[in-house]
Amino acid sequence: MRRRDTLLAAGLLPLLAACATPTLRGSGDLGVVVQRARGALSIVDTSERRVIGEVAGLGDLSHASVVFSRDGRLAYVFGRDGGLTMVDLLTQRIVQRVMQAGNSIGGAISADGTLVAAQNYTPGGIKVFDARTLALVADVPAEFAPGQCSRVVGLVDLPGQRFAYSLFDADAIWITDCSDPAHPVTTRLPGIGRQPYDALVTPDGRHYIAGLFGEDGLAMVDLWADPPRVQRILGGYGRGQQPLPVYKMPHLRGWAVAGRQAYLPAVGRHEVLVVDTATWQEVGRIPVAGQPVFVMARPDGRQVWVNFAVPDYDRVQVIDTPSQRVVATLEPGQAVLHMEFTPRGEAVWISSRDAHRVSVIDTASLRTLAQLDVDAPSGIFFTSRAARMGF
Amino acid sequence: MRRRDTLLAAGLLPLLAACATPTLRGSGDLGVVVQRARGALSIVDTSERRVIGEVAGLGDLSHASVVFSRDGRLAYVFGRDGGLTMVDLLTQRIVQRVMQAGNSIGGAISADGTLVAAQNYTPGGIKVFDARTLALVADVPAEFAPGQCSRVVGLVDLPGQRFAYSLFDADAIWITDCSDPAHPVTTRLPGIGRQPYDALVTPDGRHYIAGLFGEDGLAMVDLWADPPRVQRILGGYGRGQQPLPVYKMPHLRGWAVAGRQAYLPAVGRHEVLVVDTATWQEVGRIPVAGQPVFVMARPDGRQVWVNFAVPDYDRVQVIDTPSQRVVATLEPGQAVLHMEFTPRGEAVWISSRDAHRVSVIDTASLRTLAQLDVDAPSGIFFTSRAARMGF
Repeated sequence: MRRRDTLLAAGLLPLLAACATPTLRGSGDLGVVVQRARGALSIVDTSERRVIGEVAGLGDLSHASVVFSRDGRLAYVFGRDGGLTMVDLLTQRIVQRVMQAGNSIGGAISADGTLVAAQNYTPGGIKVFDARTLALVADVPAEFAPGQCSRVVGLVDLPGQRFAYSLFDADAIWITDCSDPAHPVTTRLPGIGRQPYDALVTPDGRHYIAGLFGEDGLAMVDLWADPPRVQRILGGYGRGQQPLPVYKMPHLRGWAVAGRQAYLPAVGRHEVLVVDTATWQEVGRIPVAGQPVFVMARPDGRQVWVNFAVPDYDRVQVIDTPSQRVVATLEPGQAVLHMEFTPRGEAVWISSRDAHRVSVIDTASLRTLAQLDVDAPSGIFFTSRAARMGF
Repeated sequence: MRRRDTLLAAGLLPLLAACATPTLRGSGDLGVVVQRARGALSIVDTSERRVIGEVAGLGDLSHASVVFSRDGRLAYVFGRDGGLTMVDLLTQRIVQRVMQAGNSIGGAISADGTLVAAQNYTPGGIKVFDARTLALVADVPAEFAPGQCSRVVGLVDLPGQRFAYSLFDADAIWITDCSDPAHPVTTRLPGIGRQPYDALVTPDGRHYIAGLFGEDGLAMVDLWADPPRVQRILGGYGRGQQPLPVYKMPHLRGWAVAGRQAYLPAVGRHEVLVVDTATWQEVGRIPVAGQPVFVMARPDGRQVWVNFAVPDYDRVQVIDTPSQRVVATLEPGQAVLHMEFTPRGEAVWISSRDAHRVSVIDTASLRTLAQLDVDAPSGIFFTSRAARMGF
């Protein structure tokens, strides 16, 4: 007590408390796991393979996604309820939180780390924020006809403070350049196909590809062409002429590019499609254990990992890309929702929602290295995403 | 003074000093610039684009290279004199330093971050250290005949605690698996070609390629084949039948893979070679301003940047990869020695040794964003390398 009183008298207790609490540490091996039901994040250390903290109070995280500041210290969490929360992974505290929309499904951060963008259903459009303060710097309603705003999906960052996204209700892809955030410049590509529902950009930032809910096939934009050019690819991709029941539309961000092939989840079919990324023609199909949801390449492209929709969502399969065969089937726990590779791919982290477990698996031996208790885990996001485009 | 006395009385000044000195910060946007002449590192912040500290006492850094711990906090600096130094970028101090050889030219860190390996000329071989303590855990002399050890070059990390390297004096490539560091297992590939002098691994970790000093052509190992297979590629690569003066052998680690092409520095010629990475055949040559030294792809592969040997080493050229033309020539300062892209490629940092300057250049507008004063800068290394293979 005497020491505490002395410090209080000197006015230094708060200073000491503030500087003594957070441990000095690097941020390159940090990550977060979304606790879907509790509206919280578990903060994880991928070197020690353990949970090191928790941050609660993030609202509805039922379809949450996360991007990171370029120093790997801050996580920007996009909640389903339109909440955008900046979390400091070192102090394990919320720094800033804004309710930026009524209904939102994700976001992106500019290549230089200065702008954070959210894609919104209600009101339909994108909003762009100062990454340091979360002050609104640009509001781009997806107004495709007077008074009509489209729900926005498939938002990705492009080089140069630009963002690409798809308008579900307007059959359009827009590219907004925020180099001067006060005067964003939007390039509109209309008539790209019916109801784009999700999209991705290839790892080189060249091809933006939107899946279509309203028809078969995909819309692809060559972003290196000037002006950007849209073409339709994989006309047979989708539910086809005799629609199959689809238990969950596959996530497109997970699409894997490994070497010269892209590996795509078939819609409704128990298959992974193999596509040549020069011609964008299908070159093969790999039978898998269920309807694929995420199809993700290990960073070196040697393996592709797949999880599945109900009722096959307890399993994960591993495809060997040189032979294009399934070489392993794992059962890491009930309701596998997401997977995330460590930056160099020596391990993969898998969330099993109903088992309340995150499994860490060695991708070479397939041995389980660790199991972490996490309440209803869904998305897993590592800070190494800060160094990659289109995540 | 009164506050200080109070703290001294409470015995808390050292504690406060210890915790107040290093700023809590993320490590994802840190990097180092080698001060070649002074044996020191400048620590830089790539978000603020400035020098934030300096660490001296690193010995002979005339051919220094650097790798990073997977949390991005520690830099491992390999000096020419065989010194291996662990530098804490957050406290800006040397944590550990060992003289591990008499003559050394670089190193690597295992994918899981637990092992640091150094490649040595004297005594010829590799040594492997515990990344936390720098305790020696494996010593693999490059003994190719009784009592004869080769100089080792071209060391790279491979998935799974393995390292690949070339034996200059033994015309061999070796792959050492350190999964059990007490019992390293080495695969020896002899007769790969005369005098391998440097090497690289492709970004997917599949192809290890060694340049040959003693003859034309290159040796390539397909590491995904079991057992690994060596083949000769690009028979015309090298000085050819009528040798040209070569002012500086090009660095191979800088070789750029962009999309389906690799861009290689020609030896002695004012050209960059374009090679198809499926067939490993030459498919083009791009005339440039001098003998290329580093040929480096911007992370998205849209541009390739080139610097040159004496007497053209004040210039840097930018190749647009879709058109395969030089689109810009920059003169950032005398004696350009190295270039490093920010993780997502929006900027490139260039060291100009004789101008004592590091320039930060916007890769889209080619505008100079910042110029930093650094004494005789050579290599530039950012912590984002921790997340990449073969760096």
